[in-house]
Amino acid sequence: MAQVPAPITSADVDAAEKRIRAWIRRTPTIEMGRGALGTDVDLVLKLECLQHTGSFKPRGAFNTVLAAEARASRLVAASGGNHGAAVAHVGAQLGVPTDVYVPEVTPDIKRKRIAALGASVHVDGALYDDAQLAANEAAAASGAMLIHPYDAVTTIAGQATCGRELIEQAGHLDVVVVAVGGGGFAAGIALACAEISGARLVTVEPEASACLHAALAAGRPVDVSVSGIAADSLGARRVGELNWAVLGSAVAQSVLVPDDAIRAAQRELWRDLRLVAEPGGATALAALLLGQIDVAPTERVGVLVCGANTDPATVAA
Amino acid sequence: MAQVPAPITSADVDAAEKRIRAWIRRTPTIEMGRGALGTDVDLVLKLECLQHTGSFKPRGAFNTVLAAEARASRLVAASGGNHGAAVAHVGAQLGVPTDVYVPEVTPDIKRKRIAALGASVHVDGALYDDAQLAANEAAAASGAMLIHPYDAVTTIAGQATCGRELIEQAGHLDVVVVAVGGGGFAAGIALACAEISGARLVTVEPEASACLHAALAAGRPVDVSVSGIAADSLGARRVGELNWAVLGSAVAQSVLVPDDAIRAAQRELWRDLRLVAEPGGATALAALLLGQIDVAPTERVGVLVCGANTDPATVAA
Repeated sequence: MAQVPAPITSADVDAAEKRIRAWIRRTPTIEMGRGALGTDVDLVLKLECLQHTGSFKPRGAFNTVLAAEARASRLVAASGGNHGAAVAHVGAQLGVPTDVYVPEVTPDIKRKRIAALGASVHVDGALYDDAQLAANEAAAASGAMLIHPYDAVTTIAGQATCGRELIEQAGHLDVVVVAVGGGGFAAGIALACAEISGARLVTVEPEASACLHAALAAGRPVDVSVSGIAADSLGARRVGELNWAVLGSAVAQSVLVPDDAIRAAQRELWRDLRLVAEPGGATALAALLLGQIDVAPTERVGVLVCGANTDPATVAA
Repeated sequence: MAQVPAPITSADVDAAEKRIRAWIRRTPTIEMGRGALGTDVDLVLKLECLQHTGSFKPRGAFNTVLAAEARASRLVAASGGNHGAAVAHVGAQLGVPTDVYVPEVTPDIKRKRIAALGASVHVDGALYDDAQLAANEAAAASGAMLIHPYDAVTTIAGQATCGRELIEQAGHLDVVVVAVGGGGFAAGIALACAEISGARLVTVEPEASACLHAALAAGRPVDVSVSGIAADSLGARRVGELNWAVLGSAVAQSVLVPDDAIRAAQRELWRDLRLVAEPGGATALAALLLGQIDVAPTERVGVLVCGANTDPATVAA
């Protein structure tokens, strides 16, 4: 058995599973079979795009709020959209007022979704990191509970529950493929992979937004520029410190994909499976479809389809 | 154990399972939990909309073609769209040329899908039954194998495999809810329900296209008029004879729903689950969301979401 990397332990993930079980969907996997989608591998997809609010984000958000000793009286979050919708959902389910700060890059469908869930939406700054500064200030001024989108033990432990489900549902996997934004989901999946022996973790980022790839090259977290069609969900300027502590030694292969490959993967998911994935949700699959992942034809590959919050007209073209 | 109704036996379904296993996706179920989607029941959805070609139809089509003693040299089918795509897919997978006759009511997305799968598409008549006459003539003239969309033992036995999967995946169900067009899918689901004791079968039809409801009222199959937003998938003028032989005594409740309830169910599936269902695919759920199904709040309900072939812009509004 591989060692679960510090600073988050299997006990943290166990606790997360217990806390969030009643609030989270156990999203299904689907066996695509050998040779599916034009690949030559034995492919399993985890349909986390069917999670509450259309992404994996409620796992970490519920875990963070429920782990606090006292129930927060107000929640604050910054988000490109998916984390904001998740925190708004948590606030609505637990009856706690919620403020969400989004950047200008956040698409209209996500702003409306957050507002429809009952949270107050504030637009501040060009990109996610700018909105995070505004949220930090608002939380400090009001005493509200700040729910970070990726760089917190409870967040990573919450996201890890998705990786455990995948492994329980799929059985043996040689490779697990996950997209990376700030690194919270990927770190959680890395923890789950580390709990079993043998599964190699492949991380995938858009060429236009690749903070983990840059950190792996530099040997430490560094700032990157952020743009491209997945910037609203994967557009962090710098990998989180905790995420880096987990991922720095856990990644078997780090792959970059161009935006047109992400769009092609979205369209393939619609064409073959009638599934809607947002750009960030199709980024992991894009690397496999491009043939960029080091995998033998006999191997079994699990791919996380982790978000669906997009205008579906964009995937049906 | 309830008796499996004649004229199709559990052995027919066993044989279908063996024949089609390698060609069909075991589509996932998702536990929606008690109180999901505004209902007060314990709801499980079977996501058959993720099947190859976006509907359940390949189950019966593969079973019919593979059950023949000699492999057909040419396939012919008539269809509102989904069965045509399924037969085109079967032809492409097995290397058999295929002609598909569709009526004018078939939406563009379905015509294009059938053509993209390599079949020749012929538009003939206003509604499905008109296209079926043209297909019958073409098959008789050419000696091609005619694959009926619903009124054949092999078709019903193939669709029954979906019901068996639901019951295996979901465990105990008090009620199973299924939409009805010509009755092939519903008859297959009825067979699967009859194999276990206790699950009540609820059939749902659009008010504008309700051949089974009319047959149940008259005590025998009768012609009905056909219109409405689900006419391309549920628009049969008369329930099939074999389907009637199964369904006439198997239906615990027959429910009709208006088109606006079907559209509302499509939008709810997108809003809450990020799932795209076509009108016929959301019709069963529509009855539950309307509160039209006789079910106690403590009961466990399985609903089949059986098709996804629609322009997704129509569900996101």
